Amino acid sequence: MPVKRQPSQRGAAKRPRAPVLRFRMRVTDGDRIAVGPGKIALLEAIESTGSITAAAKSLDMSYRRAWMLLDELNRSLAQPAVDSAKGGLQGGGSSLTEGGRQLIALYRRIEKRAEVACRDDITQLMSMLAR
Amino acid sequence: MPVKRQPSQRGAAKRPRAPVLRFRMRVTDGDRIAVGPGKIALLEAIESTGSITAAAKSLDMSYRRAWMLLDELNRSLAQPAVDSAKGGLQGGGSSLTEGGRQLIALYRRIEKRAEVACRDDITQLMSMLAR
Repeated sequence: MPVKRQPSQRGAAKRPRAPVLRFRMRVTDGDRIAVGPGKIALLEAIESTGSITAAAKSLDMSYRRAWMLLDELNRSLAQPAVDSAKGGLQGGGSSLTEGGRQLIALYRRIEKRAEVACRDDITQLMSMLAR
Repeated sequence: MPVKRQPSQRGAAKRPRAPVLRFRMRVTDGDRIAVGPGKIALLEAIESTGSITAAAKSLDMSYRRAWMLLDELNRSLAQPAVDSAKGGLQGGGSSLTEGGRQLIALYRRIEKRAEVACRDDITQLMSMLAR
């Protein structure tokens, strides 16, 4: 039964409470994460910045770490997500392949659909939290 | 466009490939995870073992760690998830409250509904993986 959310301390705004529910979707293959939120965020950053270097920097990640994630992702996919033809993985400008863009779109659509499909249950779960 | 999954190396069964997609749902409150897969698994273990000590052991977790997770969870909820009346958090037998059982049920139902609602997209995403 949903519990009404009433702030227990009106005016006590020092510590704003705003619980957030997030779906995180991962495709694992044994111990390895083939596709997960970190790799998708990296693809999105490459799409918006146009380079692995800038994408890594925007995510506060080393170039080496970004490169390793992309290498792992590309090897997990039937077709690579990042185009290495134009400078590509070795530096310089990089762009997503059609498959890379499709992967991002699918991943985000799944997250969104999951939230929409579960809206009532999510509301109920959130109502169980302390206020 | 879905790519047919064909094993590229028939008979090369040394490294079985069985990618698995999982939804992980977390409710965060600032940096703190109020509800997440670890805490839900711990509640389920307490329900099946009847004690925090046994639950912690079954999850390869220290008693101290289990206790801290439960304390954090109970403080996140309007009503505690674990009954501390019968020995409770200090040891001995522990049981879930009605709210604790409701939380598990909601959490698992949300995961399940999300998968059902996203089945087609999930199939499409999985078809992009290397085989």
